[in-house]
Amino acid sequence: MRNAAGRDIPESLLTNGREVFQGSNYRDGAEYAKSAPRVRAYVKPQESKLVASVKEAVQLCGIKNGMTVSFHHHFREGDYIANMVMQEIAALGIKDITIAASSVGQAHDPIAALIENGVVTGLQTSGIRGKMGLAVSGGKLKTPCVLRSHGGRVRAIETGELHIDVAFIGAPSADECGNARGKGGKSNCGGLSYSMADAKYADKVVVITDTLVPFPNFPPSIEAIDVDYVVVVDAIGDPGKIATRAARLSQDPRDLMMAQACAKIMAATPYFKNGFSFQAGAGGPSLAVNRFLEPLMTERGITMKWAIGGITGPMVKLLEKGLLETIVDVQDFDIEAVNSLHENPNHYEISTSQYANPMNKGAFVNKLDFVVLAALEIDTDFNVNVVTGSDGTLMGAPGGHPDASAGAKCTIIITPLVRGRMPTVCERVVTVSTPGECVDVLVTDYGTAVNPLRRDLVEMLTAAGIRLTTIEALKDKAYSIVGAPDALQFHDRIVAVMEARDGTILDVVRQIKPFEF
Amino acid sequence: MRNAAGRDIPESLLTNGREVFQGSNYRDGAEYAKSAPRVRAYVKPQESKLVASVKEAVQLCGIKNGMTVSFHHHFREGDYIANMVMQEIAALGIKDITIAASSVGQAHDPIAALIENGVVTGLQTSGIRGKMGLAVSGGKLKTPCVLRSHGGRVRAIETGELHIDVAFIGAPSADECGNARGKGGKSNCGGLSYSMADAKYADKVVVITDTLVPFPNFPPSIEAIDVDYVVVVDAIGDPGKIATRAARLSQDPRDLMMAQACAKIMAATPYFKNGFSFQAGAGGPSLAVNRFLEPLMTERGITMKWAIGGITGPMVKLLEKGLLETIVDVQDFDIEAVNSLHENPNHYEISTSQYANPMNKGAFVNKLDFVVLAALEIDTDFNVNVVTGSDGTLMGAPGGHPDASAGAKCTIIITPLVRGRMPTVCERVVTVSTPGECVDVLVTDYGTAVNPLRRDLVEMLTAAGIRLTTIEALKDKAYSIVGAPDALQFHDRIVAVMEARDGTILDVVRQIKPFEF
Repeated sequence: MRNAAGRDIPESLLTNGREVFQGSNYRDGAEYAKSAPRVRAYVKPQESKLVASVKEAVQLCGIKNGMTVSFHHHFREGDYIANMVMQEIAALGIKDITIAASSVGQAHDPIAALIENGVVTGLQTSGIRGKMGLAVSGGKLKTPCVLRSHGGRVRAIETGELHIDVAFIGAPSADECGNARGKGGKSNCGGLSYSMADAKYADKVVVITDTLVPFPNFPPSIEAIDVDYVVVVDAIGDPGKIATRAARLSQDPRDLMMAQACAKIMAATPYFKNGFSFQAGAGGPSLAVNRFLEPLMTERGITMKWAIGGITGPMVKLLEKGLLETIVDVQDFDIEAVNSLHENPNHYEISTSQYANPMNKGAFVNKLDFVVLAALEIDTDFNVNVVTGSDGTLMGAPGGHPDASAGAKCTIIITPLVRGRMPTVCERVVTVSTPGECVDVLVTDYGTAVNPLRRDLVEMLTAAGIRLTTIEALKDKAYSIVGAPDALQFHDRIVAVMEARDGTILDVVRQIKPFEF
Repeated sequence: MRNAAGRDIPESLLTNGREVFQGSNYRDGAEYAKSAPRVRAYVKPQESKLVASVKEAVQLCGIKNGMTVSFHHHFREGDYIANMVMQEIAALGIKDITIAASSVGQAHDPIAALIENGVVTGLQTSGIRGKMGLAVSGGKLKTPCVLRSHGGRVRAIETGELHIDVAFIGAPSADECGNARGKGGKSNCGGLSYSMADAKYADKVVVITDTLVPFPNFPPSIEAIDVDYVVVVDAIGDPGKIATRAARLSQDPRDLMMAQACAKIMAATPYFKNGFSFQAGAGGPSLAVNRFLEPLMTERGITMKWAIGGITGPMVKLLEKGLLETIVDVQDFDIEAVNSLHENPNHYEISTSQYANPMNKGAFVNKLDFVVLAALEIDTDFNVNVVTGSDGTLMGAPGGHPDASAGAKCTIIITPLVRGRMPTVCERVVTVSTPGECVDVLVTDYGTAVNPLRRDLVEMLTAAGIRLTTIEALKDKAYSIVGAPDALQFHDRIVAVMEARDGTILDVVRQIKPFEF
């Protein structure tokens, strides 16, 4: 069945009321009963929830074949938690586990072996890279991987579509009762936003830390009232890979040119006024936009009311300079952001539900003026792919991309026209991860195109003297440079389902075929 | 059926699995599915949830006969919200409403008339005073009022025993999406802890404010993701009655004598060590305990790690002096506490579930060392009554009394032996609101008694040279001063059920008979 993003979705997936994507606001006003965990009451006063080891926690939680366990990705490529837990689960002979992670990456390469041997047979995630991506793309996972945006993941948890039996939450600091923070330890990551839903909706919750601090560890991202057990280990991750040094602003002239064009476009819209709101991706060109926005804001005498998303040093600098009033934070991409969170009184941690869940009573993204994001590919329908590489392998993360794009009044994609020998602007993306109806403007190093759905923007930008081209012209230009790409070859087997943020099916990913010459 | 507090509970109440009180830790380890609301998704970006009036909000929420609506009591005797909402509900001809309030008082006298005319037929609350108390005690309410501790109320909400259809949350400040705070307006109350469970578990949530502020109103006590509608009114309450000036410390020599005795007792226990935790009630003698603790702490060279509960100026002073490290706050009793919350970085707002819910995975009260509380009556089984007056009328509030008493390692009741012509220490309290097994020490102006269950405390205090008497001797002394009280006369009809914090039945309150000479 063809969905609203122009993708054919096999009928076999449309069971249990599952529908194909029918437009971003299709489920607006839908009523549903929220999910809830089954919990054990700790009525009797107790001193501590400490248990001796991860193995003991796994046993006390009663993990059995077929259960779902969850992890967060605040430690990014420095994470030790998922591997250490899955190792214990495997060692106990438990099989058929579904991993529900907010993202998995190269740090989790060892888990690919557990996919091969049947310990892990399900995966639900908002990002997938490294050997995990290869294993899934190669058809090794028993059930199709479910890919969701950050907001979509919380939606699935809160509606009960994703039920977590046991959440394992790595915490840079925790007290003996489980109050856990993203700071206060030796491997600080800032906040723990992605795991907040896990803590509230999983039946059992285990906090794993390498820094036990006195009760109460406040203000907690994870509250002791939701935590069953606390485990102290030697190390939760590699600090150098958890909180990296602030990215230096790109000096690449191409990045700077695109960033400048983007800032000018923003300034030519009616949304660029005192009190506007903004999200920027963590890529080079997106980050550089801040640098060009600053003089435009000063010139107009305006300031930004709030910025959101994954936070980086450049955004923190705007806050410190008084050009930005409030940061609402779901993830910290560098040490400057980690340090600023909670220390700057205007830099707040929020839950991922607050950030982007489309099915609560109104997430922050719904109030966004601008979001500037990257793409692996974008096609002539403005569909964006940030999930599969040009060879069809899973190697990316929808993350907050679909959420911010759906919410913002003006969604801008910045990307070079070609990368290496591959066109970024193309006829048809390998996988749709953000539907084209949510994308307003494409900025490339060869020109800017506006989505024809946004006639108003075309007129405003043209009136402001900004030269526009069409996305077809950009695609033609890309193909003229690197040639039209050969069609990828896939098996029929579906290895991953890309959900729209509301739980309808946006696209499917099929098993890759080794390229045949 | 006789319960563990020695009270006979009519079998007629023991339906639907309801049990009599069987000891404070009876339900430890119980497993249950948490409740969850039925919500409406706000998928589509929207600017605002503002509606024109309380009436419109009542209509949009679809309030119908038989529904349950909730209110918080952070505005105490200055509250305008409950009256203004109930007036609209009554004007719309809606009947048979259950009010689920965290407390009701004299501010709500007008609602007593709605009990008489059948608009209100149910009441669930953690405190009841004024005409509401008289109406319920006089048998006017169609169904028995349910009295719960603060922790018990959240437990009932989270287990689903109390389902709230629509929560009305008065907020000193709010933005157009419903992010609401206890500060930032013209009637600041500090935090909004009591309404946090309502916001998370009610199907519909309405925020009512008199101070609309720009989005985002951060940090919010009530999150926009849980709010359906926002109403702006002229005034949410009487500021002078919401945040009163700090109570001056009592100069009453009797209060001071008892407070000093209490501090000495605390200092003679092993719990009085560096890093201890403390809750004090808001009454004169309890407040004065801080004054006598201070020199003892300085003498020992120790500081308090955390204080909790309703917070007052004297506790804030300890924080400012560095004698107390952290305040965790569910209610602010005076303007000093209101101001300190969030402004002092070590003064945090917590939810009432974090504070005291016995059925989550471990509330703060479970970690308390000391709590010092008052009593209307205490009997020779150490059962405390803070709910009914000496004439049997509902005129008090269990509040956090049963919660802190159950959790603390050392629960101390301070009360004068007699009040006016009534003995405070008596043979049998009118109503048990905190079971005697949770009370360790009674300090009166005629001596101190220790609960015989606490043999260890008797020995420690005696060894420290503290003179003890028995509670029977105190009761005899009280009766020798004012005489044994006449037995109250009640009708058979049960007008209120006093739940233990775990939902079992602790006691019942019967309809009062006008006293017959």
